[in-house]
This record gives sequence, structure tokens and C-alpha cells, in this order.
Amino acid sequence: MKVQGKQFESIWLDEEDSGTVNIIDQRYLPFEFIVEKLTNIEEITEAIKNMHLRGAPLIGAAAALGIYLAVLKYNVSLPFDQYIVKIADTLKASRPTAVNLEFSVEYVLNKIIKVKDQNQRIILAKKAAQDIIHTERENCKRIGIYGLSLIEKLSKEKAGKPVNILTHCNAGWLACIEYGTATAPVYMAFDKGIKVHVWVDETRPRNQGARLTTWELSQHGVPNTLIPDNTGGHLMQHGKVDLVVVGSDRTTLNGDVGNKIGTYLKALAAKDNNIPFYVALPSSSIDWNLENGLQEIPIEERDGDEVKYMEGKLNNAIFKFLITDSETKVANYGFDVTPARLITGLITERGICKATKNDILKLFPEKIN
Amino acid sequence: MKVQGKQFESIWLDEEDSGTVNIIDQRYLPFEFIVEKLTNIEEITEAIKNMHLRGAPLIGAAAALGIYLAVLKYNVSLPFDQYIVKIADTLKASRPTAVNLEFSVEYVLNKIIKVKDQNQRIILAKKAAQDIIHTERENCKRIGIYGLSLIEKLSKEKAGKPVNILTHCNAGWLACIEYGTATAPVYMAFDKGIKVHVWVDETRPRNQGARLTTWELSQHGVPNTLIPDNTGGHLMQHGKVDLVVVGSDRTTLNGDVGNKIGTYLKALAAKDNNIPFYVALPSSSIDWNLENGLQEIPIEERDGDEVKYMEGKLNNAIFKFLITDSETKVANYGFDVTPARLITGLITERGICKATKNDILKLFPEKIN
Repeated sequence: MKVQGKQFESIWLDEEDSGTVNIIDQRYLPFEFIVEKLTNIEEITEAIKNMHLRGAPLIGAAAALGIYLAVLKYNVSLPFDQYIVKIADTLKASRPTAVNLEFSVEYVLNKIIKVKDQNQRIILAKKAAQDIIHTERENCKRIGIYGLSLIEKLSKEKAGKPVNILTHCNAGWLACIEYGTATAPVYMAFDKGIKVHVWVDETRPRNQGARLTTWELSQHGVPNTLIPDNTGGHLMQHGKVDLVVVGSDRTTLNGDVGNKIGTYLKALAAKDNNIPFYVALPSSSIDWNLENGLQEIPIEERDGDEVKYMEGKLNNAIFKFLITDSETKVANYGFDVTPARLITGLITERGICKATKNDILKLFPEKIN
Repeated sequence: MKVQGKQFESIWLDEEDSGTVNIIDQRYLPFEFIVEKLTNIEEITEAIKNMHLRGAPLIGAAAALGIYLAVLKYNVSLPFDQYIVKIADTLKASRPTAVNLEFSVEYVLNKIIKVKDQNQRIILAKKAAQDIIHTERENCKRIGIYGLSLIEKLSKEKAGKPVNILTHCNAGWLACIEYGTATAPVYMAFDKGIKVHVWVDETRPRNQGARLTTWELSQHGVPNTLIPDNTGGHLMQHGKVDLVVVGSDRTTLNGDVGNKIGTYLKALAAKDNNIPFYVALPSSSIDWNLENGLQEIPIEERDGDEVKYMEGKLNNAIFKFLITDSETKVANYGFDVTPARLITGLITERGICKATKNDILKLFPEKIN
């Protein structure tokens, strides 16, 4: 997608030096656009751990490229399999909750662990990492194409007037490679010349909407308006929202959706106002073992300081400042679960389906057992 | 209520100098507790205009005391009626949307405008202002007593385990004189030894929950936990909320409630989880001329900078920080309307009633016409 008029993805191998991985250092967005160059596995691990990048698909891609860099830098002081397994373990532990991280590391590892020739290892590790990036990009693209049909339909119904889409958190290309999940249909529509406008939930306490979603939409030229998380219901009551699209961190087999805290409140408001509420997700985020989201999806409780402190700009420098009394007690849940009954449909890389076990399995019949 | 162990109200005449009005300068809460002394009408007007104090009942009380100070400082350069009417007009224009402001000013004015004796004017203006303060205090106290019955019932049902009450924004004693509206039942229960715990919505964008409600509850000793506005639905889904009580800025005759933006989302979540949702309000905030809240209650759209900037503490000083890209477009609606169908009941100074025209008029039969 576009940044300052140029095409970017969220991670890429340097064209001139294939031993350098470029990432957008998301810690500084939207205040500064900084491309960071990572040249070894320690820097990749650090970037994942301290959230220079975030978003499950992007973390997976970075980890895969990390293994590739490790292979590239291998010298003979340790047997290769010992060397690479140790690195893989450290990498997997850098963000223990992201499923994609483990999957990506294992995927690259399996392609190279038994290969004896170092040049061959390098070629295979690079290809495996690029496969992962390709798959993530393709999945988002397909989600975009399927979701586009919803926006096209609404655009026709509104006789070409802007379609107003509300989203929560950042399920954008910054979390993926390109297009994003919830944002993919929006970018597709915009690029096709369909008039769209996005209401972006601020998404307290980490402000991913205010900091990342508004930034990436604006850079690509998509009209958008930031709103406090409290505002969406009012907008829906007054006909100012045509469609809600959000991402998902974990979806159960019966269609319950675990996503950023506050998603449930927007789903309730959409239902109350007869506004379609869609969840865009690659099937990799479906947990095929779970059926009851409310009972079974574990909800992370995070540090209260995320609520008590906020990053902001003062005199051109970025500071973290205290926005409550220092003694204030805080509860900070990272996610909530939106019951399937509130969801109009799931937009996956294989098409749109109802949020029911039956319909999900029709799209993914290989999961029936 | 208590601050640093001592009993305080939000506004009071100096005991030693009846020409001085004391207020808690709320601009510095929760970072600093500063009592400001106001000795003339200009200082009172400035305090109302620039929100050293806020909350409709408190604004009304301050304005009434402002007229009293103006009478006190009257000298003969201008005929009294011209002098006082001019002052009253300026005062009324300091926050044009607060109904209580106009009511209070007119109330005091009517008591003194035709009085010829200056000493008599002073006595009458002081008494009129004190009447207003007394009425506000009494109304909150009665709301507290009626609301207490709800908490007592829940406490019994929970066999004495803490009753968890969720509230939004600040409808506390800082907005009133004492007790507050939504907080009144909580203080009553706490003072009676009933175990209570309050979930306090942060209330973006102005953070009245994080800055004021947590502060006033904590100072009085009431256990409370700050949560982002996104969190309430999740807590309700998991049985962690027993009761929701909020305030109201304007209530229609049929029971629709205009209140701080985001209230509607919490009402939806309470309904979805069968949790009682009450609105505490003095009848002075009922607009007897309106029937359809969604269509008729005007919703103030405020400056987007309230969303883009935030006040916080850094190195012991308070700054205003930019928390988004400076170019970000923002929508900032101050209030939303919660339809009567989502409200379990209204807690008024005359008792609790259903949010229906019929039941409201049973409590206030003098309004039938």
C-alpha cells in the first residue's frame, strides 16, 4: 500500500543486499515513518519482542526471515542442527501467544534441518520465508476481493454516495504484509474508484486505531475519521454507518470471534441498528478445536500501565506520560468475544460464510472429522 | 464527601470571609488538589467558562453565588437593576448549554431585582444562593437513599459479597454539591458498611471517569477500578457487573436519556446480559417538552482537539500532548441517546420509576397538562 506516495509492504528483503530485512518501525507511527534495517537474528528477535512490528501474520513473516538470516550467518563453530534449533527456540519464545510465530518458524525449519549443503540451505530458507509472505499476501488479497462485493452492493444501493465503514483496532496492512484483513475490502474498493469513508475507533488502551489505522488509510489516500470508542453507537443510530468490518485474533468453529476488546460493544450496536457486521479473517486464525468462544477463548489480562500512561508528542519529541492518578487501580483485558449470533458473516480467503459451524465447514471441508 | 480524610463539598462560602467562594479547581484533578478562592463576579465567570468547575448542578450553584458576590460588591456608579442584569447576562452566556445556569441566575435575580435596600439585597441574594445549594444537595441525597435500596437488595442476593457497579463519566459529587447523582447510591451504601466496588469507565475523550470519578471515589475510600470504555461488555459477559448506574444530561418525558457519549453502548451490553441499567437524575434534568430522545435531543459536536490532545504528567508537571498524527480528521460528539427500552429504571429525588411517560408522570403529577 502507499506511504508518502510510494508503494510499500510491511516487511521486505533489501533489493541490493539480500542479507538485510527492512521493516517499518511501528513504534514511532504515526509520529515518524522510520524504516529499520535488520541484519541478524538478534535484531529480528528484538524487533518482534519489543514490538517494532506487530500483527500475527507480520510476526510470522519476520520470524521466517529471521531463520533465513540465521542460516545466512551460520559458521562452523556448532553443528548446524543444534545451532538452528536453539535459534528457533529463542525466536518462538519472543512473543509466546502468537500462533503464526511458531508455525512460521517450524515451516522454515522443516525445509532445512536435514539439508547438508550450506548454499542449498540458504536457497531453501529464503524460498520458505518468501512462501509464507506470499501466502499471507494472497490470503489478504482474496479476503479483499470477497469483501469488495459487499461494498460494491452498498455503493449501488447508495447510488454512489460514500459507503461508511466502521472498524476497530488495526487489522490493516501494517499487521499483515499487504491489504490487511478488515481493511482489504476497503483498499480494493478505493483502488477501484468506489467512494468509501472509514470511521476508525481509537481503540483504547493501546490506540491502534488512532495511531496505525488512520495513518495507513490516510497514506493510501482513503478518507477516514478518527472517533473515540464511545462514538460508534451514536453514529449507527443516526444512519452514519453502512457496514462494520473488524479482524479476529481467534475464531471458534461455531463462529464466535475473539478480537480486540470493545469489538463486542460495536457488534451489539450494529445488531440494534440493523447494520451488517462482518469479520475478516484468514482461516489460519480459526481454532478448529474450540466451539464456545465465551467459555473457551482465553482472554489476556495486560499491564495496567497501558491504561495509565500514554505516548504523545510534545515539542517534537515523543514521551510517555501519566494520564491518571499514579495510585489508580486498573483492569486491562486485551480482548473480548463477540458471539456468533451478532455476526452477519465471516469474510475468509475462500469466500464469505455465515458464522455457523455448518457454513464454516462448507468452505473448509477438509476440517470435517 | 471525603478528600484527604476531611469532609468537603464542591463549593462553599468561606467561614471567615463571607465574600469569598471556595471551589475545588477541577482542571488539576487528579494530579493536584487545589482549592481556589473566588472573590468577585469576574473570577466566578472565568471559573465557569474555563471549567475550573463543571457539572450542571455545580455550575448553577456557582452562578448563584456569583450573583451574590456581585451584589456584595455593588457601588453606586450605575443603577442597581442595570448593573445586576448586565452581570446576569454575562454570567448566563459563560456556558450557554447548561440549563441550570440560567435557572439559578434567574432565581437569585428575581429575589433581589426590586429590593431597594442594599443590606437587604445582600441577605436575600445569599439566602437564594444557599437555597439552590441546599436543594441540589437534598435531591442528590434522596436519589442516594432510593438507589441504596437497589444495592442493598443485590448485596443480600450476593450474601454480602461486594456489589459491582459500573458507571460512565462523572456523575459524582464533583459535578454536584455532595453525593452526586449516579454515585449517590454508592456513597450511601459504602457509608452504611455495604461492600461495593465500582468499575469506572475512562470516558474518552475528556477522561472524566479516569480523572474525576476514580479520584472522588478513592478519596472517600470506595474501592474502584478504572477500565477503558471498551471493557464493560466483556465484564458483563463474565458476571463481573451487578448493576449499571449512570447520570443524565437530559431525559425526555418518555424516558429516553441523553448522557455522555458511550452510555448507549453500555446500556446495550447490560440488556444483552440481563444486568439492571439505571439512570440517576434530579427531575430538573427532565425536559418535559420532548418525547423522542433520538430525534429531539440536540447532540453537541465538540472540537476534535479534545481527541487529538491529552493532558498528562511528565516530570511532575502537567502538559498537553498530541496523541495522533497532527493531520488526523476527528469527529467528537459529546453525548448519545439511550432509548427508554434499554433502561431498567430512573432513580429520581421522588423515587424510582420505569422509563415510561406514564410512570414518570406518576411521580411528577404536577407536570401533567
